[in-house]
Amino acid sequence: MSPSSQIPDPRLSINQATIKHADLATALRVTADAGVRSIGLWREPVHAVGLDVAARMLSDSGLRFSTHCRGGFFTLPAGADRETALDDNRRAIEETATLAAAGAEGSTAVLVLVAGGLPAGSRDLIGARERVRDAIGVLAPEAEAAGVTLAIEPLHPMYASDRAVISTLGHALDIAADFAPEVVGAAVDTFHIWWDPQVLEQIARAGRENRIATYQVCDWKTPLAADVLLSRHYTGDGVIDFGSLTRAVVATGYDRDIEVEIFNAEIWADTPESVVRRTAETFAAAVSPHLA
Amino acid sequence: MSPSSQIPDPRLSINQATIKHADLATALRVTADAGVRSIGLWREPVHAVGLDVAARMLSDSGLRFSTHCRGGFFTLPAGADRETALDDNRRAIEETATLAAAGAEGSTAVLVLVAGGLPAGSRDLIGARERVRDAIGVLAPEAEAAGVTLAIEPLHPMYASDRAVISTLGHALDIAADFAPEVVGAAVDTFHIWWDPQVLEQIARAGRENRIATYQVCDWKTPLAADVLLSRHYTGDGVIDFGSLTRAVVATGYDRDIEVEIFNAEIWADTPESVVRRTAETFAAAVSPHLA
Repeated sequence: MSPSSQIPDPRLSINQATIKHADLATALRVTADAGVRSIGLWREPVHAVGLDVAARMLSDSGLRFSTHCRGGFFTLPAGADRETALDDNRRAIEETATLAAAGAEGSTAVLVLVAGGLPAGSRDLIGARERVRDAIGVLAPEAEAAGVTLAIEPLHPMYASDRAVISTLGHALDIAADFAPEVVGAAVDTFHIWWDPQVLEQIARAGRENRIATYQVCDWKTPLAADVLLSRHYTGDGVIDFGSLTRAVVATGYDRDIEVEIFNAEIWADTPESVVRRTAETFAAAVSPHLA
Repeated sequence: MSPSSQIPDPRLSINQATIKHADLATALRVTADAGVRSIGLWREPVHAVGLDVAARMLSDSGLRFSTHCRGGFFTLPAGADRETALDDNRRAIEETATLAAAGAEGSTAVLVLVAGGLPAGSRDLIGARERVRDAIGVLAPEAEAAGVTLAIEPLHPMYASDRAVISTLGHALDIAADFAPEVVGAAVDTFHIWWDPQVLEQIARAGRENRIATYQVCDWKTPLAADVLLSRHYTGDGVIDFGSLTRAVVATGYDRDIEVEIFNAEIWADTPESVVRRTAETFAAAVSPHLA
């Protein structure tokens, strides 16, 4: 936040993963108490209290709901495990709709999808990508019926083998192109795409095609953590130019919440109150100036 | 190598980094003794004996010379450090020409360029990339005069901030396009580009534009090593589909040596004899079948 104000940016949303060890009640309370207006939830802490209770708690918090994290894991070959994964995504779609309805005005029914990595023993990257497309084809009508947008999240290429075979924003948009934009969009996460020589033109394209389902920010810094999943940092602590990326997103007309999602063992060891405060301060310094 | 033959593939080249702890004499001897026909050298072990001696040793070995590693580090802003880096690249060009002339028939005068990362404290990725282009513009006439091809090596995006701001083959080709193909090409290294949704079309483009200066292979496996620089593996030990990538390279008409370049602490701890043997065996199994 700026020196002249302790009020967090009204568009900031705390993705619950940033305060991973907080249960749902704590996450909602800490976020609201800090003056933050929006939150993105994860499925596990929602399941821990049950969907109906979670929805009531969210409603009582007065917070907007920005995204539900996460569905996906679509790369398994045909069989029982794949059907189980698809069924789980159907539940995630319902959860997303319920939570978005329970959140304050301006909530968005967005389910973030992580594609999944190569199945064990497979080297068929092209086939895995086709199965992602197929799974989205199965789920899209159900998302549409529920009023939910599926947000394909391209993950950094260092996760291509074990987490997500969708590695660039352009690739996510290519897949989304088969579907209506209110049903299938893309997650624009600075950590995953900042390096891409095509990033600015693909953000512009995502805007033209009405596909920016969520904008998420956090920073990149080296050396990477030994577990590369945990290398995400507060905005401004690393090398990402949030100015150019944020202005590109704003230029598309994107006017919704902006999530900070950080996986970082050191940050997780801090208190949730401190993490939310620091998230708001660093967002105000690194991102807010580019939202005008 | 195939069960019916202990002769390594005639196109296999051992990149000296694969046997990092071997000095030049050992590297040449072990490579030739294994029946491998080609080697890619690194500057430091060449400097350790001096260029003239290194050239004579290479000539005596009977091996072809496939690449010199490496030049680059072009992202520094104008100033003395940048000039020092450019001068060092001028020496590397001369070394490349000398060593290629000393190697057996079929040697290639290719200098591999690693672009360099963001300068300390900088977030200007676009500016850093422009400085890479500028540096190549300065060096290209000198490379041309020396008969050396500069091979821009796109590095995996996980190295974009600290090693190389050139992250995709398409990006490398865009930069190379300003220059004659015999002067500026690209290094096609499976480890760095296997994940790219555009990889096959960019390899085809590289072929059409006569830009494949070297084809290098090694494998990708997760979890990544704690030091992500050291995550390279023997071909076949990971998830890369060497079939589709190698066939795409062969389809362009590329008919020169193929280097195996592995950075891996466990492999470096093995004897060079064992590493060269294992490299030849795994290459024969994973790559050779696709060279027909």
